[in-house]
Amino acid sequence: MSAEIICVGTELLLGDILNSNAQFLAQQLAQLGIPHYYQTVVGDNPQRLKQVIDIAASRVQILIFTGGLGPTPDDLTCETIADFFGVPLVESAEIIEDITAKFAQRGRVMSPSNRKQALIPQGAEILPNPTGTAPGIIWQPRPGLTIFTFPGVPSEMHRMWSDTAVPFLKSQGWGKEIICSRSLKFWGIGESALAEKVSAYLNLLNPTVAPYAGKGEVRLRISAKASNTKAAEELIAPIEKQLREIGGLDYYGADDDTLASVVGELLRSSGETLSVAESCTGGGLGQMLTEIPGSSDYFWGGVISYDNSVKVRLLGVKPEDLEQFGAVSATVAEQMAIGVKNRLKTTWGLSITGVAGPSGGTDTKPVGLVYIGLAGSADEVRSYECRFGAMQTRSFIRHLSACTALDNLRRTWLIC
Amino acid sequence: MSAEIICVGTELLLGDILNSNAQFLAQQLAQLGIPHYYQTVVGDNPQRLKQVIDIAASRVQILIFTGGLGPTPDDLTCETIADFFGVPLVESAEIIEDITAKFAQRGRVMSPSNRKQALIPQGAEILPNPTGTAPGIIWQPRPGLTIFTFPGVPSEMHRMWSDTAVPFLKSQGWGKEIICSRSLKFWGIGESALAEKVSAYLNLLNPTVAPYAGKGEVRLRISAKASNTKAAEELIAPIEKQLREIGGLDYYGADDDTLASVVGELLRSSGETLSVAESCTGGGLGQMLTEIPGSSDYFWGGVISYDNSVKVRLLGVKPEDLEQFGAVSATVAEQMAIGVKNRLKTTWGLSITGVAGPSGGTDTKPVGLVYIGLAGSADEVRSYECRFGAMQTRSFIRHLSACTALDNLRRTWLIC
Repeated sequence: MSAEIICVGTELLLGDILNSNAQFLAQQLAQLGIPHYYQTVVGDNPQRLKQVIDIAASRVQILIFTGGLGPTPDDLTCETIADFFGVPLVESAEIIEDITAKFAQRGRVMSPSNRKQALIPQGAEILPNPTGTAPGIIWQPRPGLTIFTFPGVPSEMHRMWSDTAVPFLKSQGWGKEIICSRSLKFWGIGESALAEKVSAYLNLLNPTVAPYAGKGEVRLRISAKASNTKAAEELIAPIEKQLREIGGLDYYGADDDTLASVVGELLRSSGETLSVAESCTGGGLGQMLTEIPGSSDYFWGGVISYDNSVKVRLLGVKPEDLEQFGAVSATVAEQMAIGVKNRLKTTWGLSITGVAGPSGGTDTKPVGLVYIGLAGSADEVRSYECRFGAMQTRSFIRHLSACTALDNLRRTWLIC
Repeated sequence: MSAEIICVGTELLLGDILNSNAQFLAQQLAQLGIPHYYQTVVGDNPQRLKQVIDIAASRVQILIFTGGLGPTPDDLTCETIADFFGVPLVESAEIIEDITAKFAQRGRVMSPSNRKQALIPQGAEILPNPTGTAPGIIWQPRPGLTIFTFPGVPSEMHRMWSDTAVPFLKSQGWGKEIICSRSLKFWGIGESALAEKVSAYLNLLNPTVAPYAGKGEVRLRISAKASNTKAAEELIAPIEKQLREIGGLDYYGADDDTLASVVGELLRSSGETLSVAESCTGGGLGQMLTEIPGSSDYFWGGVISYDNSVKVRLLGVKPEDLEQFGAVSATVAEQMAIGVKNRLKTTWGLSITGVAGPSGGTDTKPVGLVYIGLAGSADEVRSYECRFGAMQTRSFIRHLSACTALDNLRRTWLIC
């Protein structure tokens, strides 16, 4: 028994979007232990879609469709599937009611074209979509063949998959031999350097350990196969412990942890508070911190001092130091950190000032040069110079700056 | 005549990597005007790969493979293709020489396993790989069928595609008819409502018009087929003009435009400046604005007033109004906007305060309720109430909040 992922959408054939849905579903199928040997992408074209269904239905037992469930005429997935199996579409009162309510919540009236989204093959079960108007289906058009449809919008698809498809597949006996993975996250060390440090672990068979590069960080994925989650976790735990010891301070968290969530937990545990002063990141550090629910317990806010006048007026940076050392300097980073800490009356003040590019770099202050300031509880202030490289993109330099600022606070907190 | 993209690799089936190669090749095929209706992903398994070749060779005339050209035993693409067509592999002295030289360059000796990479089907042409050890091939195993193979490493594949595949395809007469696309972007209207407004256009044949949903926004993609870029643009231009007129104020930009870049251009054109005061977005609005290079010309900074004390201390919000109306209220949004505008001495002040969730919602102030304040040039201040819906994620509510704030400034600027 195996599954095939079928992604429907002309935008995929034109290369307009990256097929992240196939990756998500592939990971999910692996976790449930459902074999999956093929992925197919096809456009919004009924003839070709039918041909794809014909091939897939002859070689696998579970067909998972994404895309083509929208309200517009080129959204044809559901009706084409029904047509292929010679089953009529019926309008679901339940879906009509749900869509009407969702429009009402936003103060709008349902468009007539949304009615199309309430048509499902006779005998299919509805796969509710809590966050959008396009519901999916679970349907057995014939014995031994199960069809799932999901909208193409990734966030809607993820939620529907976890809420309904996973419980359904488990009820069918899947997930008995499962693969559990744990991703250990490291900041401040490169992929090859970490791989060399843990080389003895990279040939293990169960669990396996594989390094891969994230966005500015490195991860080690430990994957164990076992009959249940507990047994898999028991295989993972001792290896995780050893890898974390090898990683030392470079290890910062696992799985859903982010540098912002880890820093947040440290501050919460000690009853300390944080404020930020941002120049080149323009709010990105604050955004990372406040992406964590409950961050108001320790994060009080900050100042986006993009223009120098704001650094002076709202943070108390000395105009003569701006003049002498420039906005991108250790001195200004330190004054920004002290300024925001004192004005917002927090335990810590964290600042960033740098050259994010693509223009604005000079020989002495190239693109990628960033100073991070950290004013701490003992009225001490430090600064850190980072050189992220002039070949990096503006967006990546900003991301690295915000993450490195959080990482400096994390290391300082842990060492003190 | 059409092409199919076939990506080979078990790592794709496990979801370990995102299939960016398929997106790159799809864009390239579109630019050359080569129709492409299918993409297939299959693992490093000869039987299944042969089945995929069989299906593809029966429906298209150009097969483009990526992946499975490496030196390890699980890299099977080239030998499986040769085997399928019953043609022997021969060792290429040219490739051996090239790989040996590349190893020598790095002071290394070629591994015996790399010898495998020099085996190509008899009669195939070599597609050189300037940056890696895995060459590709161009091969006509039978009349009317052309096969390309590329390594899976994106940077190597891109280079080989441009250096050799594109000139080859052009020499075969491709690229005479090209496809150009333009994506029009709309904010403040749903996909179905926009599709109804432009329904007359959705049946056009050249250019075609197709709606699709982005992250909180809707796009109309206009695609034209023509003999050259200029001719395609001439087909697109009148349709674009009409669609923009129908879209009215909901249309905000095209292709790489973002709400932040569009607002930035308006401010730059009038020499006006902007500051922001953010509560629930925590810096996300500032981050969006500063993602645009050169935004320092009009964006001066702002205050992240996550905690109420910061709203009072740095923005001058009245404590009694916070008490009476709550932090999430039109009154507070307006005071935040005025406060930041006056303190940073900018033309406009834009503020956001809301309930991003997942907790913190009440019956009267549910998750998804957001107030946007806008203090303008004529010392006027307005506020806007948004209800994004309690079922949305924290991250999406924050994204919608920042975009809607920018959109309100954009509309106000255009109307005034």
